[in-house]
Amino acid sequence: MSQSISKGCPSPVAWTGRTVRLLDQRWLPGRECYVDCDSVDAVADAIQSMVVRGAPAIGVTAAYGLALAARDSDDLEALAQAGRRLKSARPTAVNLGWAVDRILLRCRDLQQLADDVLVEARAIESEDLRANHAMARHAAECLQGTVNVYTHCNTGSLATAGFGTALGVVRQLHAEGRLGQVFVGETRPWLQGARLTAWELAMDGIEPTLVVDSAAASVMRSGAVDVVITGADRVTADGDVLNKIGTYSLAVLARHHGLRMMVVAPTSTVDLDTTSASEIEIEQRPAEEVAAWNGQRVAPQGITVYNPVFDATPYALVDWIVTEQGVFRPPAA
Amino acid sequence: MSQSISKGCPSPVAWTGRTVRLLDQRWLPGRECYVDCDSVDAVADAIQSMVVRGAPAIGVTAAYGLALAARDSDDLEALAQAGRRLKSARPTAVNLGWAVDRILLRCRDLQQLADDVLVEARAIESEDLRANHAMARHAAECLQGTVNVYTHCNTGSLATAGFGTALGVVRQLHAEGRLGQVFVGETRPWLQGARLTAWELAMDGIEPTLVVDSAAASVMRSGAVDVVITGADRVTADGDVLNKIGTYSLAVLARHHGLRMMVVAPTSTVDLDTTSASEIEIEQRPAEEVAAWNGQRVAPQGITVYNPVFDATPYALVDWIVTEQGVFRPPAA
Repeated sequence: MSQSISKGCPSPVAWTGRTVRLLDQRWLPGRECYVDCDSVDAVADAIQSMVVRGAPAIGVTAAYGLALAARDSDDLEALAQAGRRLKSARPTAVNLGWAVDRILLRCRDLQQLADDVLVEARAIESEDLRANHAMARHAAECLQGTVNVYTHCNTGSLATAGFGTALGVVRQLHAEGRLGQVFVGETRPWLQGARLTAWELAMDGIEPTLVVDSAAASVMRSGAVDVVITGADRVTADGDVLNKIGTYSLAVLARHHGLRMMVVAPTSTVDLDTTSASEIEIEQRPAEEVAAWNGQRVAPQGITVYNPVFDATPYALVDWIVTEQGVFRPPAA
Repeated sequence: MSQSISKGCPSPVAWTGRTVRLLDQRWLPGRECYVDCDSVDAVADAIQSMVVRGAPAIGVTAAYGLALAARDSDDLEALAQAGRRLKSARPTAVNLGWAVDRILLRCRDLQQLADDVLVEARAIESEDLRANHAMARHAAECLQGTVNVYTHCNTGSLATAGFGTALGVVRQLHAEGRLGQVFVGETRPWLQGARLTAWELAMDGIEPTLVVDSAAASVMRSGAVDVVITGADRVTADGDVLNKIGTYSLAVLARHHGLRMMVVAPTSTVDLDTTSASEIEIEQRPAEEVAAWNGQRVAPQGITVYNPVFDATPYALVDWIVTEQGVFRPPAA
C-alpha cells in the first residue's frame, strides 16, 4: 500500500543506542527539535512535560526508558523501580503501564537483561505499527463510500509508533480514494489538532480544515461530517472511553446530529481491571496551560482553572470501538 | 443595589468631547490601553479589528461615531454615508444597524444636527445600561434558589454600556446572594471568556472557574451547572439566536444534560425582518485568528481554516429569551 507509512512525518521516539531520542512536540510545527534522554528520570520528565504525548507513543517511550534502566543496572528491583517512576509520569494512559508491566513480566534473565528489554521494547514498537494498520483496515470496512471525518487531538504518527489510530483510518480512507473532508478540532489547551494533526496530514498531501473546538457543532449541523473518529487513552471493560478533553463533547454532539462516533485504539489501551469510567480519577494539569500562552497571561492572575486532560465518554454514545483484533460494538465482550 | 454598577471595570466606549475613546480589548487583561478615534473611518476600523466588541457596545460606539460625523459636517447625506460605513464594519451584530438607523431617522434638523446626534447617542448608551438592569431582574426571577451558571464569551460591562446582559444576570444573582459556581468558557479564538469575563468578574469579587470550551460537556455531566446563560448578537423573529461561535454547541449539550438554556439580549438585538437563522450568512473571519497566536504560527502555513464568528441556535433549544421588556419563551411573539 503506497500510503502505508506517513511519508515525511518524523517518528516521535527513537532508540539511538545510547539515548531515547524524542521529538519535542511542544514546539511543532514551528520548530523540529529533539531531546536526548539518557536516564529513566529524563524519560519520565519528558513524558510528564508533554515532550512526547499520545498513549501508544508514551508506551513505546516508556519501554525504551526501561531499556536505559536495564543497560545501567542488571538488578530486577532497579528495573521495577524505574517502571514505577515511568508509570507515575502520566497516570491515565493505560498503555504506559501496560508496556512497563509487559517488560517487567517477560524480562527476568539477569544474564541478558539489557538485551531482552531492548528486544521487548522494539517488539512493542513494531507491534503498535502493525496494530495501527490492522485497525485502519477494520475501521475502513465499517464506513461506506466517501467519508467526511471530524477528528480531535493528534492520533497519528506522532502519537504512535507510526501511521496512527484514528488518523490511521483517515490515511486508510485517503489511500482507498474514499476520503472526503477532514475537519480537525484545534484541541485546546495544547492545540494538538492545530499543531500536530494538521502538520502531519499536510505532509501526506491531505488538506484538512482546522476549526476551533466549539465550532464542531456548527460543522456537524451543516451536514459536512459523517463520522467523528478519535483515539482513546483508556477503554474500560464496559466500553467507556477515556480520551482527550472534548471527546465526550463530540460524542454528545454526534448523537444529537445523527452522526456516528468511532473510537480507534489498540487492545493495549483496554483496561479490563476497570469496569466503568466512573472508577477513574481524571488527571488534572496546571492552570497555566489554559491561563497563559507561551508565558504571556491570557487570564487574570490567580484565576481558578478546571483543566482536566481527559473526559469520559459512556459506551452508549460510541458506535464502534475498533482494535487490531477487530471491531467491538460496546458494551465490550 | 450595591452591586448595580461594576466597581472597577472601565467602560468600553466613552465620548471625550473630541474623540470616541475605546478601551482596546485586544490586549486585556495584560494591558489596559485606549484608542482615541477622531473620525468615522477610525471608529469603523476599530469595530472591524475588534478593539471594541460585544453587540450593545458596538451599537453605542457606532452612535458616537455618527456624533463625530455630525460634528464635522451638517450634511444629512454625509451622515447617511457615515452610517453605511459603520454598518459594514461588522455585518452580523444587529445593534449596530439599529443604532445607526435610529439616529438617522430621528436627527434631521440641520440647525442642530451635531447636538441632536450626540444627545441621541447618549440616550442609546443610557438606555442600554437601564435595559441591562431590567433584563437581569427579569432573568433572576426565572431562576430559583442558588444558581450554578455556565457562560460563554464576554457579555458584561465590556460588551455593553455597563453591567452586561448574560453577565448582568450573574451580577444580579451575586447581589441577591444566590450565585453558586460560575464556569466561564475561554471562548476561542479571541478568548473573550478568559481575557475579559474572568477579569471583569474578579473586579466584582466573583471568582469564576475558567475552562477550555471543549470541557463544557464534562462540567455539565458532573452536575456542577444548572443553566447556560449567553448573550446574543441577533435574535430572529422566530427566536433563533445568532451568537458567538460555541453557543449552539452549549445549547445542544445543555439539552442533552437536562439543563436550561437562557439567552439575555435587549430588544435592539431582535431582528423582526429576519424569520429564521437560515436566512443569515454567518460572518467569517481570517484564518490567522485560529492559525496564529500573537504572530506566532500554531498551525502549518497555508492551512484551511473554517472560522465563523457566530453560530445559530434554533429556538427549540432555548428555554428563555430575556429582554428588557420581559421574558419570551420562543417562538417569539
